[in-house]
Amino acid sequence: MKTLVTIDKVAQLLKSWDNIHILTHQSPDGDTLGSGYALALALKYMGKNAKVITCKEIEGNFKFLQEGAEPAKDFSCEKVVSVDVATPSLLGDNMETYENRIDLCIDHHVTNDIEAEYKYVDSSSAATGEIILKLIDALGVNIDKSIADCLYTAISTDTGCFKYSNTTGDTLRAAARLLDIGCSSQQINYTFFELMTRKRVELEKYIYDTMEFYCDGQCAVIYITCDIVDRLQLTDDDMGGIEGIPRRIEGVRLGITIKEKSESLCKVSVRTNGDVSASDFCGNFGGGGHKAAAGCAINENITKVREMIISQAKEVLNEGKS
Amino acid sequence: MKTLVTIDKVAQLLKSWDNIHILTHQSPDGDTLGSGYALALALKYMGKNAKVITCKEIEGNFKFLQEGAEPAKDFSCEKVVSVDVATPSLLGDNMETYENRIDLCIDHHVTNDIEAEYKYVDSSSAATGEIILKLIDALGVNIDKSIADCLYTAISTDTGCFKYSNTTGDTLRAAARLLDIGCSSQQINYTFFELMTRKRVELEKYIYDTMEFYCDGQCAVIYITCDIVDRLQLTDDDMGGIEGIPRRIEGVRLGITIKEKSESLCKVSVRTNGDVSASDFCGNFGGGGHKAAAGCAINENITKVREMIISQAKEVLNEGKS
Repeated sequence: MKTLVTIDKVAQLLKSWDNIHILTHQSPDGDTLGSGYALALALKYMGKNAKVITCKEIEGNFKFLQEGAEPAKDFSCEKVVSVDVATPSLLGDNMETYENRIDLCIDHHVTNDIEAEYKYVDSSSAATGEIILKLIDALGVNIDKSIADCLYTAISTDTGCFKYSNTTGDTLRAAARLLDIGCSSQQINYTFFELMTRKRVELEKYIYDTMEFYCDGQCAVIYITCDIVDRLQLTDDDMGGIEGIPRRIEGVRLGITIKEKSESLCKVSVRTNGDVSASDFCGNFGGGGHKAAAGCAINENITKVREMIISQAKEVLNEGKS
Repeated sequence: MKTLVTIDKVAQLLKSWDNIHILTHQSPDGDTLGSGYALALALKYMGKNAKVITCKEIEGNFKFLQEGAEPAKDFSCEKVVSVDVATPSLLGDNMETYENRIDLCIDHHVTNDIEAEYKYVDSSSAATGEIILKLIDALGVNIDKSIADCLYTAISTDTGCFKYSNTTGDTLRAAARLLDIGCSSQQINYTFFELMTRKRVELEKYIYDTMEFYCDGQCAVIYITCDIVDRLQLTDDDMGGIEGIPRRIEGVRLGITIKEKSESLCKVSVRTNGDVSASDFCGNFGGGGHKAAAGCAINENITKVREMIISQAKEVLNEGKS
């Protein structure tokens, strides 16, 4: 049974709980990790045991979020909270262990089908980090620099540093508070929105050279093959944010990134402008997300995935034309 | 004689004035134009005659800022206000006419040597647009969507959409107000921070192919020659923000863009990370600006400018090494 609750009720529940596992989604981004570690820190400051559960060890640019958030001691999990996880399959390798035992789900996705006893889903928040900020206030915990760094990372990365259409006045006020607290916004912005590794430069050249256009330039598709990842020795950090590239090109309404994961699996990221629904597009392939940003995984080789995606793109963009 | 005044005094002066010319700087950016047109609109709403003076007609992405700001009728200029102009030479072709008759100078640059009867210079503001927002409040004028669009453009473009180190909590709160008012932040962000023309894509490929590194990769230099501008038929909009590219590369502390303007003139833009002062660097060549972003013009051909700049870069970056 799912009960939608208020932020005060969420705070009340957490106050009464202890020994908490906080679940994040696979292929973790700044919002799921920043929200998770901020909440873990707040619970730790309250004297509780809390641990952020990830699918694999966090390395690279997101690693700093973990600082100080390790639980003080080992403990047995009693309560489970998911943050920024829209659907059970996004728990990845942790799905089997946790799927049927989530007590509280905190999220900002328009569609959320996590089965949890208590749910707080606010799709008007640009990032789950915005919700966690309100929650930590409701818990009465002082937001220190470490929490502020986590929340700033969550909010800035989910809004493209306040550039995307999900950014509201409240988003900017939340970030303003975190800057007032002295979060390392400058370092975080540089890391996630400015810094280009030399490999990233090579990757962008490759992307621009191989980008394809369809439907009179309304659809742009880029490909990240296993071959280019191997050849340039690309890390996840090198590839951060590339999904945003095709949508940026003049005239593009539907920007698609196809990442080859193996001979029989591709991940597809969709970003849209205007009235094209990314979540509807990905819904056709069992995925989902937001109106302007969504994703799906397709168990086919990249040639087949390219065909499927382009065919769907033509259908969507040519709708109502005849 | 220069008198530093408070924002309330600035408001009081403007209330008592009429028939005002508002000066902007040459090679205009979003801050000088957004500030100028926002102020013109506010003065117009107060029933005054006000006109924004630019060096040449505004075309392309900034053109929308002018909407509704044209003066209702012709008038003879009685008072002159400069916005975001750090030094008289930045008035360009308008210098001769206006240099010695500026009544009020409003700016946010650390160094400002405009001779004006009254000066309001606040270098803690990320953009002159932040100051104009306070000023319009002090004037008691309601900030409508048109003014909000101008001010949002001013503030967002001068902070790289809130990414740069000049962004403060106050900057974000100012922007939050403008979003609450319903400014077209989404369209503005898309235009200035997302949109890439196909020509821009070609330009970035060219830049990445020809970028040079010095001092163990601490200095990156890019070149925009007359030849590439002609060949790709580049507009100012196509080239917007390229000065930010070299600084973004991993390890770069000093990012330099050399734009060839003619056989005997180059414009140099400098962007820095960490403790390298861009304004000091450009000061050596008669230019100036902020600590992390500055510029200068050098009356030499591009080969000579390249030599001068690289030699200076080596001096700055190797300082204290021996």
